[in-house]
Amino acid sequence: MKIVILGSGNVAYHLCKAFSQKNIAVEQIFGRNEKDLSQISSEFQIPYSTTSLADADIYLICVSDDSVAEISKLIKKENCLVAHTSGSLPKEILSGNYRKASFYPLQTFSKEKNLMYSEIPFFIETNQNEDEKTLFDLAEKVSQKVMRSSYEKRKYIHLTAVFACNFVNHLYARAKEISDHEGIPFDYFIPLIKETTEKIEHLDPKLAQTGPAIRNDERVLKLHEELIFNEEHRKIYKTLNESIKKMYEL
Amino acid sequence: MKIVILGSGNVAYHLCKAFSQKNIAVEQIFGRNEKDLSQISSEFQIPYSTTSLADADIYLICVSDDSVAEISKLIKKENCLVAHTSGSLPKEILSGNYRKASFYPLQTFSKEKNLMYSEIPFFIETNQNEDEKTLFDLAEKVSQKVMRSSYEKRKYIHLTAVFACNFVNHLYARAKEISDHEGIPFDYFIPLIKETTEKIEHLDPKLAQTGPAIRNDERVLKLHEELIFNEEHRKIYKTLNESIKKMYEL
Repeated sequence: MKIVILGSGNVAYHLCKAFSQKNIAVEQIFGRNEKDLSQISSEFQIPYSTTSLADADIYLICVSDDSVAEISKLIKKENCLVAHTSGSLPKEILSGNYRKASFYPLQTFSKEKNLMYSEIPFFIETNQNEDEKTLFDLAEKVSQKVMRSSYEKRKYIHLTAVFACNFVNHLYARAKEISDHEGIPFDYFIPLIKETTEKIEHLDPKLAQTGPAIRNDERVLKLHEELIFNEEHRKIYKTLNESIKKMYEL
Repeated sequence: MKIVILGSGNVAYHLCKAFSQKNIAVEQIFGRNEKDLSQISSEFQIPYSTTSLADADIYLICVSDDSVAEISKLIKKENCLVAHTSGSLPKEILSGNYRKASFYPLQTFSKEKNLMYSEIPFFIETNQNEDEKTLFDLAEKVSQKVMRSSYEKRKYIHLTAVFACNFVNHLYARAKEISDHEGIPFDYFIPLIKETTEKIEHLDPKLAQTGPAIRNDERVLKLHEELIFNEEHRKIYKTLNESIKKMYEL
């Protein structure tokens, strides 16, 4: 099976790295950004091109949602399997006469950060059983958690990830504004942040909730409202406290 | 130095455990809940009482905010140091003719979960240098991160912790409602959640932000609004996306 990866961002980089660790050959990495392509190329000994797409059996499109449709048109071959890696696009967004699929790794990727690929869930959707087997075989060389998933389900997986990852990171960013404002090093909060996350590996987060809102501690809630110095912080504080109270019917 | 701990909750339990690991004797653990007291007592070989408070040089009050003032009145001795462990109370809440202090460990405590005490920041406030030295010496036997902190600063430390811990846990609980609703095991999200947290140990969370809001991806934002089936989720989704857009001036 000849594999070509399209894109040179974080997902493309990590798929190249994961495949390289398992000695899965990638024929070519193809894209527009020559600097990024050449870096990936030299790190994993994969040929790259910005102009001429190599022949392959599987094309994996690892570009931003906006560019998936456009870049998929570059694949003129018909007897091949093309998959995108987006959590929020149907496979039908792919535009060509090839067989279409989704190959979605549920993780947040940054180039500078090593990842345990074996733990990353991969969600796969194809039209044909044979293609499903092909993508399962590929993903299972990298990960222990490979599953089927329809677009209907994938959309919700992505929405859940927005709450559990993107929004959580934003709370860290907002929390850091508060500690920065008071000259408190944000490092102090890292053990607390790690513990909050470790706890829910074994405990339902609903049962792990602590803090003034679930205690219905009006004194502290009022105190915090007085301390808050930023309108966005105030909106977040109100919305999340109200949501906590609703969840526990306080 | 004779130490007595008042309270039998999670903070009391973990202070007893941390002191026990460092061979720091605790004279007595005192409180109302005999069942919890006797468990702590037998686990760490510390005498307990629900009626007769032992003589000590240092009393550490580890009870909920609401009960600190009341329980502090039980200490009739004057030549002693009394500290509470709350993040959101002034030391003046303590009611007696003893020397007053704050001894605040920044962590979320559950009995069933082991903790690395050496990493937990302790914030200390006293009226006298000598008392400060006493509490620093005690905390430094347990932790490598012991600092002075006024009530003014402590309040903001606690507010930051609410954003970075309590609200983050609530987002996990809300995220799990979405995945439960779709029959997607929440376990799938654990590697993503861990990676989100590990990332900010090395990267400013403001620079680590990903997701549809920071990309100003109107298609996905609209798609998610259509998927959301719960009014509280909708409010959180709107508030946090707007806050992300404001932070990055999108």
